[in-house]
Amino acid sequence: MNIEMIRAAATRLDGHARRTPMLSSPFLDEIAGRRVLVKPECLQHTGSFKYRGARSAVSALDAPTRKKGVLAFSSGNHAQGVALAAQEFGVAAVIIMPADAPKMKIDNTRALGAEVVLYDRAGGESREAIGEQYEAERGLTLIKPYDEPQVIAGQGTTGLEIAAQAAELGVDAGDVLVCCGGGGLTSGIALALEADAPGMRVRPCEPEGFDDAARSLISGHIETNNTRSGNICDAILTPAPGKETFPIMQRLCGPGLVVSEDEALHAMSLAFQRLKVVAEPGGAVALAAALFRKDQIKGDAVICIISGGNVDAEMFQRALNKYGRS
Amino acid sequence: MNIEMIRAAATRLDGHARRTPMLSSPFLDEIAGRRVLVKPECLQHTGSFKYRGARSAVSALDAPTRKKGVLAFSSGNHAQGVALAAQEFGVAAVIIMPADAPKMKIDNTRALGAEVVLYDRAGGESREAIGEQYEAERGLTLIKPYDEPQVIAGQGTTGLEIAAQAAELGVDAGDVLVCCGGGGLTSGIALALEADAPGMRVRPCEPEGFDDAARSLISGHIETNNTRSGNICDAILTPAPGKETFPIMQRLCGPGLVVSEDEALHAMSLAFQRLKVVAEPGGAVALAAALFRKDQIKGDAVICIISGGNVDAEMFQRALNKYGRS
Repeated sequence: MNIEMIRAAATRLDGHARRTPMLSSPFLDEIAGRRVLVKPECLQHTGSFKYRGARSAVSALDAPTRKKGVLAFSSGNHAQGVALAAQEFGVAAVIIMPADAPKMKIDNTRALGAEVVLYDRAGGESREAIGEQYEAERGLTLIKPYDEPQVIAGQGTTGLEIAAQAAELGVDAGDVLVCCGGGGLTSGIALALEADAPGMRVRPCEPEGFDDAARSLISGHIETNNTRSGNICDAILTPAPGKETFPIMQRLCGPGLVVSEDEALHAMSLAFQRLKVVAEPGGAVALAAALFRKDQIKGDAVICIISGGNVDAEMFQRALNKYGRS
Repeated sequence: MNIEMIRAAATRLDGHARRTPMLSSPFLDEIAGRRVLVKPECLQHTGSFKYRGARSAVSALDAPTRKKGVLAFSSGNHAQGVALAAQEFGVAAVIIMPADAPKMKIDNTRALGAEVVLYDRAGGESREAIGEQYEAERGLTLIKPYDEPQVIAGQGTTGLEIAAQAAELGVDAGDVLVCCGGGGLTSGIALALEADAPGMRVRPCEPEGFDDAARSLISGHIETNNTRSGNICDAILTPAPGKETFPIMQRLCGPGLVVSEDEALHAMSLAFQRLKVVAEPGGAVALAAALFRKDQIKGDAVICIISGGNVDAEMFQRALNKYGRS
């Protein structure tokens, strides 16, 4: 895993992934007590950064392998990223999703041409067993959500853009806050910035109770969350940092930042009001950290990622009801 | 008023106005029955395209004139654009706003450093008389909202970006739908596309009951709306096309498109769900026309502008309540 893989992924993604803009608002600067630059990956194809890694991994397969199709386990954003990438190459995508996943996410994944296989999470069906069967029978290639070098390389292209866009705005140093689940986006951006903006320091951001990355960085070992669900930040609730991602994070990242569910909702409301973009709860934790953890951040400028915007109207209205009324 | 003024404005705006991205969604393509490209000017500084024209006009003043400060009449987006442009040049901005304008817009304009002068719309105070007094006493220069060549030139820079971005995506022909109040954005984009994408045709989009541009294009004369308010699309409720803008629209634009308030709300909800951007009602009329007037549109691809996103939580929730639940 190295910077050359990220640059190669950027070449493969050119003309496919969107170059998301860099947004800002004087009103957010005032809350944060410093300049805030926001990279809205909610505007990426499929509504999250996951398309970058999926397209990178699918495009990196040799043609005969790719032709047999790809496989993914996901209840959300990774599913849609893999489905679109496969559709673009005209190959089959089988996505194994829990039967109780949000209907909208199941429908969207199907609408992107994927074959969705539902399994009963509560009834003890093993998604791995189902997946192995598909791999064996049809020769599908599994696209992991984060612990896979070509996926990390794709997510890292976000970091190349951050370095270039921040430089245009006169920023070459400061903390870069990244919404962190398994660490694919965090480690990819960290590698890209090590090369292109060495004055910047990446920091993983997580919701309370799911701060496995923050704790792992403190202990120096991969730490696991006690629970697997029960937080509105569903997109980034991963059991633990990955075996590929953690060593990169350990070498390059600053301390993790942790925010509450209410702070994520508050950040969603401010992204609505001040940036005019839609963030999902898990996608808003880095902005929440920029705004509400200012004493733990260093420098005159802070950069943060909004990692996704796949939120239903009910949850969005909850954020506006609580924090959007003036 | 010519293309060279638009190119000169683009040079003056370089590094200041945001180059907004070009968004799309297969779900919107399906509704529209053709490929839909969306230019979200809600992501522009101050949340609407108005900053482009304001910055263009303020930057075009000679330095001694600019130093005395600028003046604008506006209850909304133009106010914020002029306030920010003046702040960036370190000159005074006096914005004359109706006392019953939304508090948020008054607060935002003040927060951008402008001196806000409130007048009593109902009580018959003349904003022009107030403005003339400021012009005489302090030598301020009036920045008109649309009927001013340097403002049109600034809005036209949106068209230069559309031509370049659409070409990158393989689109060089089709209807370009523009939210239309006084016609500054519409005529500016039409001039830019005449030069850089002559296969494209600009069409003004308006709310029902405020279709002065559509009627003027049919009659060949400037037609006026019967009422001045009473529609949720407040950002684009202008009495009539301008003397500068109408001849350009008449020469270059196709027939106008008209949508209902409910269709604007529906488009806002789809922009939330599929594009992850926040549109205000007036800013959503072009997207609404792309989605719900497909029989009146020609070509394999349609381009539309979301002109602004300055909407309060209550109105946004109204859109989600009506059209956002799955």
